[in-house]
Amino acid sequence: MGIQVVRFEKDNTEKWGVLSDNQIKVVKGNYLTLSDFLEEGQEEAKKLLEDSSAESVSFNDVTLLSPVTKPARIVCQGANYSTHRAESGMEAKRPPFNMIFSKADSSLTGANANIVRPSNVDLLDYEIELGLVIGSNINEAVEVTDDNLHEYIAGIVLTNDVSARDIQLVQGQWLKGKSYRTFCPTGPILYLLDQEEISLIHDLELNLWVNDELRQSANTSQLLFKPAETMTELSQIMDLSKGDLVLSGTTGGVAMNLTPDILKLVSDPTFPAEEKLTTFVDNQLRGNNKYLKDGDVVRASIKSKDSKIDLGEQKNVITSHSLVTSNH
Amino acid sequence: MGIQVVRFEKDNTEKWGVLSDNQIKVVKGNYLTLSDFLEEGQEEAKKLLEDSSAESVSFNDVTLLSPVTKPARIVCQGANYSTHRAESGMEAKRPPFNMIFSKADSSLTGANANIVRPSNVDLLDYEIELGLVIGSNINEAVEVTDDNLHEYIAGIVLTNDVSARDIQLVQGQWLKGKSYRTFCPTGPILYLLDQEEISLIHDLELNLWVNDELRQSANTSQLLFKPAETMTELSQIMDLSKGDLVLSGTTGGVAMNLTPDILKLVSDPTFPAEEKLTTFVDNQLRGNNKYLKDGDVVRASIKSKDSKIDLGEQKNVITSHSLVTSNH
Repeated sequence: MGIQVVRFEKDNTEKWGVLSDNQIKVVKGNYLTLSDFLEEGQEEAKKLLEDSSAESVSFNDVTLLSPVTKPARIVCQGANYSTHRAESGMEAKRPPFNMIFSKADSSLTGANANIVRPSNVDLLDYEIELGLVIGSNINEAVEVTDDNLHEYIAGIVLTNDVSARDIQLVQGQWLKGKSYRTFCPTGPILYLLDQEEISLIHDLELNLWVNDELRQSANTSQLLFKPAETMTELSQIMDLSKGDLVLSGTTGGVAMNLTPDILKLVSDPTFPAEEKLTTFVDNQLRGNNKYLKDGDVVRASIKSKDSKIDLGEQKNVITSHSLVTSNH
Repeated sequence: MGIQVVRFEKDNTEKWGVLSDNQIKVVKGNYLTLSDFLEEGQEEAKKLLEDSSAESVSFNDVTLLSPVTKPARIVCQGANYSTHRAESGMEAKRPPFNMIFSKADSSLTGANANIVRPSNVDLLDYEIELGLVIGSNINEAVEVTDDNLHEYIAGIVLTNDVSARDIQLVQGQWLKGKSYRTFCPTGPILYLLDQEEISLIHDLELNLWVNDELRQSANTSQLLFKPAETMTELSQIMDLSKGDLVLSGTTGGVAMNLTPDILKLVSDPTFPAEEKLTTFVDNQLRGNNKYLKDGDVVRASIKSKDSKIDLGEQKNVITSHSLVTSNH
């Protein structure tokens, strides 16, 4: 059995813990980074589950933090579910390449933290995604299959790849529109997978609600580029370290809805940018009430049908401030 | 006066040093990261310049390493010189937004290391760029001007933003095509700027040769989005840490040459990707002998007209291996 790890703040101290029913058994060791926790704290965390005298706090009494800590690379797959491809104006079928981009690690925030809309952003969108937490240092090309995936993936986590569509699409490269502080709610639970459980990542249910309306609902079986082949390709390109995060892409149901024509227009670098922005924002807001507004509440969960694997629930309120620092 | 810092390997040990004529005065302290060196080694390095008894080695007798160390964020500006915009099929004038993307830090390599062409890459290109090394931890929006730029930029460095055009442009998001291991030769010299010298970054000459043919030649006065305004904007989006690297964009003269029509086609996500790749590669190789081939030698330098600021010279040979680890 895997374990459900949480990182939290209580009495101004950041701690690691392991979830048992609705109680967090508190890890004594003090680990500044997820990598340190994976190397040195994991064993203690496992033992705590058997220890009835361990210090514990209620899950509801703490401030949940992202279990992925900074610095971390956040590497993302784009357009990796057919339903999201179709609503984005693309061919629904699996394309010949795995689209890869990145988010800044200062976008990481806790499962219940506010998502802060920058004042220049009109098209704020949500994207529920299964996050893969890297479990080893990868410094060369490796062949990853479902049989050895457990050597490279330590665990899984619920993430929301919050996106400023007006910045992301009009400016062409996605880093900026995906990276604002608080744009990556992560957690609450980092599920550390046992080797025998690794196949369960192919059958997890993703659900996301805005103000209690179900917007996204899918199963990880629908991923077009699977975790193992994605890890193989990433290893051929770049180094990844223990504690880094790979987001596997979102499914249909986001606020953004593009016809092929508008996708083509907004992707055209020869089209004047100011006019493109106006046209795109008008197009997206016309008869579309789904983009996130201040006060909206986004809830999300990922779990297996039988709830044996449960990554917990996020609940994030949209707020707006022009100048903010990261909260994670 | 600023100092010329180098990081190098000799007798299987990595060291920091400061350049004086053609000699490296060896810093005694052992700093694993550039951030540590900036915090703790900089003072020693400055004092070494006055110390005639300091241990020294010849610049020509060492293996030069990237003075920017991993982990580091590498944040890049795209299309930031008019000449490069024009040859890329874009309007030459300054656009309404600063295009931002990133490279993986495992692309970092030394000034004289081989650049390894992945076997799947046909359109390998060079991009000389002035690199800005971050000098403080930036965790919130700050207003950066030329008057306080020295608080945020510790120094400058020569970089080559090597690019696989076929991957970069056909796949839309640039991270992958810009990130292969060895795709960011950096150094040899990290010039740590004195506060009074910061204005000199606006008048540096960039030159890049392939097999002794001058391909790129420009001056940083031609940058469209300047360092201070770029730092202001980046701080509004993401955290940056001491030792991170910002690449300011390349100038005209790269191998890639696009008409607006071919740029539009290759940027169109609704155009079938296999056909796009074939069309694009054919278009780029027709009558164009400038893309890098195995055995080509790329040389690059950045300095002020009077050579008071000199970031040294890179000399990188193109090789091809399908599986490589990073060398930096």
